[in-house]
Amino acid sequence: MTYKTNRNKLTDVSRTLAKVAMGEAFADLVIQNGTLVNVYSGELLPHMDVAIAAGRIAYIGKADHTIGDKTVVIDATGKYMAPGLLDGHMHVESTMLSVTEFAKAAIVKGTTGIFMDPHEIANVFGSEGVRLMHDEGQQLPLKVFTTFPSCVPATNDLEDGGATLEVADIQAGLQWDNVVGLGEVMNFPGVVFGDPKMCGEIEATLQAGKTVTGHFPSDDDRMFQAYLASGVTSDHETVTREQGLHKVRMGMHLMIREGSAWHDVKEVIKIVTEDGVNTANISLVTDDVNPQTLVEQGHLNHVARRAIEEGVNPVTAIQMVTINVARYFKLEHDLGSITPGKCADILLIDDLQKMEPSTVITDGQIIADQGKLVVEFPTFTYPAHIRNSMNVKQALTAQDFKLATGTQLPQTKVNVINVIENSARTEKMTAILPIEQGIIQPDAAQDIVRLACIERHRGTGQISLAFASGFQIKSGAVASTVAHDSHNLLVMGINEDDMAFAANELVKLGGGMIVVENGKVLAQVPMTIAGLMSEKSLPEVVKEVAEMDQAWKHIGCTMNAPYMTFSLIALPVIPEIRISNRGLVDVTQFKLIEVEHPEESASLN
Amino acid sequence: MTYKTNRNKLTDVSRTLAKVAMGEAFADLVIQNGTLVNVYSGELLPHMDVAIAAGRIAYIGKADHTIGDKTVVIDATGKYMAPGLLDGHMHVESTMLSVTEFAKAAIVKGTTGIFMDPHEIANVFGSEGVRLMHDEGQQLPLKVFTTFPSCVPATNDLEDGGATLEVADIQAGLQWDNVVGLGEVMNFPGVVFGDPKMCGEIEATLQAGKTVTGHFPSDDDRMFQAYLASGVTSDHETVTREQGLHKVRMGMHLMIREGSAWHDVKEVIKIVTEDGVNTANISLVTDDVNPQTLVEQGHLNHVARRAIEEGVNPVTAIQMVTINVARYFKLEHDLGSITPGKCADILLIDDLQKMEPSTVITDGQIIADQGKLVVEFPTFTYPAHIRNSMNVKQALTAQDFKLATGTQLPQTKVNVINVIENSARTEKMTAILPIEQGIIQPDAAQDIVRLACIERHRGTGQISLAFASGFQIKSGAVASTVAHDSHNLLVMGINEDDMAFAANELVKLGGGMIVVENGKVLAQVPMTIAGLMSEKSLPEVVKEVAEMDQAWKHIGCTMNAPYMTFSLIALPVIPEIRISNRGLVDVTQFKLIEVEHPEESASLN
Repeated sequence: MTYKTNRNKLTDVSRTLAKVAMGEAFADLVIQNGTLVNVYSGELLPHMDVAIAAGRIAYIGKADHTIGDKTVVIDATGKYMAPGLLDGHMHVESTMLSVTEFAKAAIVKGTTGIFMDPHEIANVFGSEGVRLMHDEGQQLPLKVFTTFPSCVPATNDLEDGGATLEVADIQAGLQWDNVVGLGEVMNFPGVVFGDPKMCGEIEATLQAGKTVTGHFPSDDDRMFQAYLASGVTSDHETVTREQGLHKVRMGMHLMIREGSAWHDVKEVIKIVTEDGVNTANISLVTDDVNPQTLVEQGHLNHVARRAIEEGVNPVTAIQMVTINVARYFKLEHDLGSITPGKCADILLIDDLQKMEPSTVITDGQIIADQGKLVVEFPTFTYPAHIRNSMNVKQALTAQDFKLATGTQLPQTKVNVINVIENSARTEKMTAILPIEQGIIQPDAAQDIVRLACIERHRGTGQISLAFASGFQIKSGAVASTVAHDSHNLLVMGINEDDMAFAANELVKLGGGMIVVENGKVLAQVPMTIAGLMSEKSLPEVVKEVAEMDQAWKHIGCTMNAPYMTFSLIALPVIPEIRISNRGLVDVTQFKLIEVEHPEESASLN
Repeated sequence: MTYKTNRNKLTDVSRTLAKVAMGEAFADLVIQNGTLVNVYSGELLPHMDVAIAAGRIAYIGKADHTIGDKTVVIDATGKYMAPGLLDGHMHVESTMLSVTEFAKAAIVKGTTGIFMDPHEIANVFGSEGVRLMHDEGQQLPLKVFTTFPSCVPATNDLEDGGATLEVADIQAGLQWDNVVGLGEVMNFPGVVFGDPKMCGEIEATLQAGKTVTGHFPSDDDRMFQAYLASGVTSDHETVTREQGLHKVRMGMHLMIREGSAWHDVKEVIKIVTEDGVNTANISLVTDDVNPQTLVEQGHLNHVARRAIEEGVNPVTAIQMVTINVARYFKLEHDLGSITPGKCADILLIDDLQKMEPSTVITDGQIIADQGKLVVEFPTFTYPAHIRNSMNVKQALTAQDFKLATGTQLPQTKVNVINVIENSARTEKMTAILPIEQGIIQPDAAQDIVRLACIERHRGTGQISLAFASGFQIKSGAVASTVAHDSHNLLVMGINEDDMAFAANELVKLGGGMIVVENGKVLAQVPMTIAGLMSEKSLPEVVKEVAEMDQAWKHIGCTMNAPYMTFSLIALPVIPEIRISNRGLVDVTQFKLIEVEHPEESASLN
């Protein structure tokens, strides 16, 4: 049976709910005799019934009077009844899944609402892309709220993405239903120094009565407090206890993150377990999770479990993924608790330490039971042009990947992007590379490979070439259209023929990730939605990603999740050095730099 | 120096604040080396500076870099720095003062923001009255927010006030700046049973993204949960620990009240001190305070002090009158904490147990110091017709107060309103009264006096007559135009000449309260603003009220604050029996009833 929404505006069904509460009409569903996780009082209340009608909670307590012949009754004896979990900050694109496929995976784990920042698709298709993901979310049993992407592009003069978002776009988007705020305001220097676009976006959001979410990874306290004065009210980039404590004290809504790559709970949760701060303004979020994490560890339930493992009271942990989130986004009247009038988004859980829901109910409908979906999700098809986002001028050749030297010398000193395993940062290093027939050569012995970034949105034919280190690639090539944030076509390898092959194959696929060797595809993850997301299911994507992981190993890279590190190599807002379609970017100076050091090269020779 | 507001929208001054934080500009005011009451983390943080610019907080910590030649510096060594107190529910009219005079009294006690429900003036002058009080509030250093009165009139067919408010009026009012919600929705049966006006008002409020405040004095749990399903989210009528616990568990924002007549803290705060519930959704409010309480005990600081006396941690108590209130009304981005970007509403307090602010700062300006105002408040003059609200057809005579019997008998059985000291409830009793010349006589021996309610808004000449008991009045008469909720002209006494005299004198005064005896005025409290509020200062009004209290005693009444009990005798929504301009109201049946019992009277004689 295909899911059909039972989501109702409160005032449209108040009468129905009142009648059920008063015993004048019967409930649709009654959950009997569970232990209520009361996120308001902070208590566990045993032997409670919850009566549900029109998708909302009508009565709590002893609810026999609400049970009629047609009322479905669930026995929750021995189980906890918790509000559905709300992820206050996440990017669906990171899961490589469509919103629908992500929702399937997340909802069985107890996530019933997300606040997504569709920042990646915005860099490819602008407002249209945001709208499509938003619309896809509206037909699902998962409640999909959007914070409108604030920093598209991430930089003004260093790269070319598929789209830009201006203040007027944000103003328009803020009027859509379920757009609840502004997405993470990453350009904190822009905010602090009064960049008109950043200030305009924030003002528009506050004017609309909505929430401005933040991103503040620096330790500069003066800049931090200046950032707060803008109206930004949250942060999810906190990695130390000291930062966490300071942010809570300064009134920030602190989102403690546990994603696939960022494991911040262990350290930052100490502000709760050791410093004992008030938790009302703290939540737990995932930010970025990959498909493997979804399968192996779960979603937000895993983050709550991690907090509990670190010593947080389970009720407090649940508050941090329910009511605290709802309140932060001003949705407390609909979400975040099991109390009369609220949307009936309820989890039955056997063991609060494990946080694995046995039953998931949203809007009063049973969506998942014993870890399996029991409704069929509606399908959503993206328009053809979104599924054909590769706009590369012409087939690439080996020649395109050969970086000619500006010198007449036998070797040259070059800038190299050195990546760091499990980190988004890179290091700027230099190396001496040989020159053959006027072409600078990679050097596997030094672990230095060719790197290219090809403009893929407008068919300009623009291509930039550079060198990378740290991946230990010995043969073949890799390519990816997930290339934060402008998502051009990244290619890396030793062999320029394989690089051209990888690029051309990925263009044919419609985007995604690929690993090739000697003219053969070793593994591929097609991501046909904007070159960012797969149209396949989670198990299929997990299988493809696992195969891709193996293929990376096969060509020499033993790094953890190398495709993630690779996809960040183009992100020109995190130090120290990056590649964009325009060239090599020194992030410490926010400017384009040359690959070669001609004067120093001359002195070498 | 007359106060001029320094209130700025955050985004208008973000740049200024950022510059001060960054050390590029100087603060206007720096408070140095105080102990910060941090309502977010729940901590007391010693040795903190707070730098203020453009009326808002620019920097917190060690703020030397923000001090320039023109920066005013306050040494807060040994003092606590707490956010200004916010009263989440109160009626200014209860203080008998204008908003300006109330503000003077409240602000020296640390109240820097109120959420007023100008319900009384709404019953006299409708939206215009609400607008005037609202506008008066906007020019003051006290932040005056309005919840738009929801139940005007209190009943549909039992009385005639000066105005009614319809859904369209509420919709219009919700658009005014600083109207933040709907005032206490008292008509809970209307809500539960789907009264279109009540439902329309609530829907309009939620549609505007604002807060619907409640009033639920019943113990009927089914009705309570049905009431919650409407979208109402708070209550301030809770008098028992059990009710309080239940309301918190059911997701209500619980406002624990400590007014002049209602002392709910002692009992209800046990949910915090004994049950240990989460306090994030609990606040402390005053609801109704009279002038004497303001002078003798204070305002919201007294309520916080009471909570502390009952064992609440002072930081928790302060949270309940600051951040919790701001968050409930969705104003957390501006109010309720001392954190960067927020309005600089700050109290310096020597002793948190005593909660007496030594300095009060609002919007970065010092308003009060050592219990004295240091700025002159702007004046506000109500229009002439608001100050001449008495519209009584013609001078009253003794004859008007004589209730003729419908019988031909020497005595008659009548219904009597029996009041209860310190309670808003009344009891319906009966008595046998003598008849002289066809007129039913009062009987001081039985403590039964004449009671009249005269329509005073439209000059209809309508007058209703009945009998009251419980006041022990032996001579003279009293009159009041404070006569909840329709505020007609109430007159009570033994002597019908004195009743006419009292009524006529009060009409001449322009409304208020009066006590007379043998054709002489013993005491009077003129309330020329709508017949509800004085134009005088708090000390003057306190003196007048004290004299009036003495006058009540002089004519025989020893009751505590009898004028309050008297002013409630016309309120036809609290059981059991009342008087309105239309007649005697049986509140248990919600209908008008006869004074006499003709059949039973016949059997007597």
